[in-house]
Amino acid sequence: MGDSTLILLRHGESEWNAKNLFTGWVDVDLTDKGRAEALRAGELIKELDRQPDVLYTSLLRRAITTANLALDAADRHWIPVHRDWRLNERHYGALQGLNKAETKEKYGDDQFMKWRRSYDTPPPPIEAGSTFSQDRDPRYADIGGGPLTECLKDVVERFVPYFEGTIVPDLRAGKTVLIAAHGNSLRALVKYLDGMSDEDVVGLNIPTGIPLRYDLDSDLKPTVVGGTYLDPEAAAAGAAAVAAQGAK
Amino acid sequence: MGDSTLILLRHGESEWNAKNLFTGWVDVDLTDKGRAEALRAGELIKELDRQPDVLYTSLLRRAITTANLALDAADRHWIPVHRDWRLNERHYGALQGLNKAETKEKYGDDQFMKWRRSYDTPPPPIEAGSTFSQDRDPRYADIGGGPLTECLKDVVERFVPYFEGTIVPDLRAGKTVLIAAHGNSLRALVKYLDGMSDEDVVGLNIPTGIPLRYDLDSDLKPTVVGGTYLDPEAAAAGAAAVAAQGAK
Repeated sequence: MGDSTLILLRHGESEWNAKNLFTGWVDVDLTDKGRAEALRAGELIKELDRQPDVLYTSLLRRAITTANLALDAADRHWIPVHRDWRLNERHYGALQGLNKAETKEKYGDDQFMKWRRSYDTPPPPIEAGSTFSQDRDPRYADIGGGPLTECLKDVVERFVPYFEGTIVPDLRAGKTVLIAAHGNSLRALVKYLDGMSDEDVVGLNIPTGIPLRYDLDSDLKPTVVGGTYLDPEAAAAGAAAVAAQGAK
Repeated sequence: MGDSTLILLRHGESEWNAKNLFTGWVDVDLTDKGRAEALRAGELIKELDRQPDVLYTSLLRRAITTANLALDAADRHWIPVHRDWRLNERHYGALQGLNKAETKEKYGDDQFMKWRRSYDTPPPPIEAGSTFSQDRDPRYADIGGGPLTECLKDVVERFVPYFEGTIVPDLRAGKTVLIAAHGNSLRALVKYLDGMSDEDVVGLNIPTGIPLRYDLDSDLKPTVVGGTYLDPEAAAAGAAAVAAQGAK
């Protein structure tokens, strides 16, 4: 066990995970399966020797509801909460709202994987005012509506400074921190924590709804590279399912 | 409309409201009816010309879950949250866990009403380590486990300074503030806002799950004394039901 503990939790299955659509910043809800995953995550957290002292979430409903349900199940519903757009999912640009399988068929495997997994190539930007854009969403008013598209590198560049400036002080104070966020914002953080290369992070997949525990030493280096899933078997199956998205 | 707006929301029906038990700081859950009340409260809030910018809750599940459900229904799940024990329900001392009707029968109408509604007479203190005490609850560790009993005056004395020191700056900054709390912590606040006497507050009952809007002028005085319930008919029926508690 390290000096401090970080628990990462990707939201449970969302309505658009279930429909195989690119979601990004579109604020979809959890499915019933996703709610059940969140409750199960809370039960797993409740068994830990270190309980979350503080919660960080994105501004998106699927992460917020996952955290609410999980903390309630863990009897830690009362801990302080911080929400910030820097924990949001990667903005998927013009792909938001498109079906993954149809996109793959239309543009081909190479372009599809580039958009999904390339470290530094963002999808085309979303058109302002279009159905799935966030440019008039009040929660992003103070950042001018937010980005129009992002690659994983963009997510690293917005999330890591927030982690260092805001979350690390809590860890240094000995708090156990729960971060409820998204596939790509958590990939960005894991890349940073584990010191992964831009190439290696391409193959990293994070399953929905299974807490991932990182014990950190006094330099905030993981005592176990890659951390430890609280339910390793379910995590392996879940990561394989994420990797297979785009298949019909 | 005033310079700033405050929305007060008592949690929806809890399991112990339904069982007619003194609850206080015991951390019971909402009933299905209470969850439905919370969703309805969110729908009412969603129709307002001023939407909540920030949420304050107690550390108790029934207020936290009510706020989570209401804000989700209002599409304001992403606003900042602050939780503090000073918004908690009045600590009911040794009465916590007792049936209201049985207590009334055992001790008589006068003693019962004194415990429920006297401004400055607390019930007998709860025994440390007993079933319904909070002295080993981690959320109250930094306040030594919290009080052993409280009268409404005690609630005024803990909540009003928090309101003035922490919530008022948000109101002065023009934010619309949602407070999700409890029958007696909201009675304490309404007493303060409306300048009610210690005698008059005895007759004040706040219904579960119906948002109460206060528009405040530049001196933070209510533009309408008593505020405005977003569903006045349901509020009148709800307040009458609260007043009648203790009847079998």
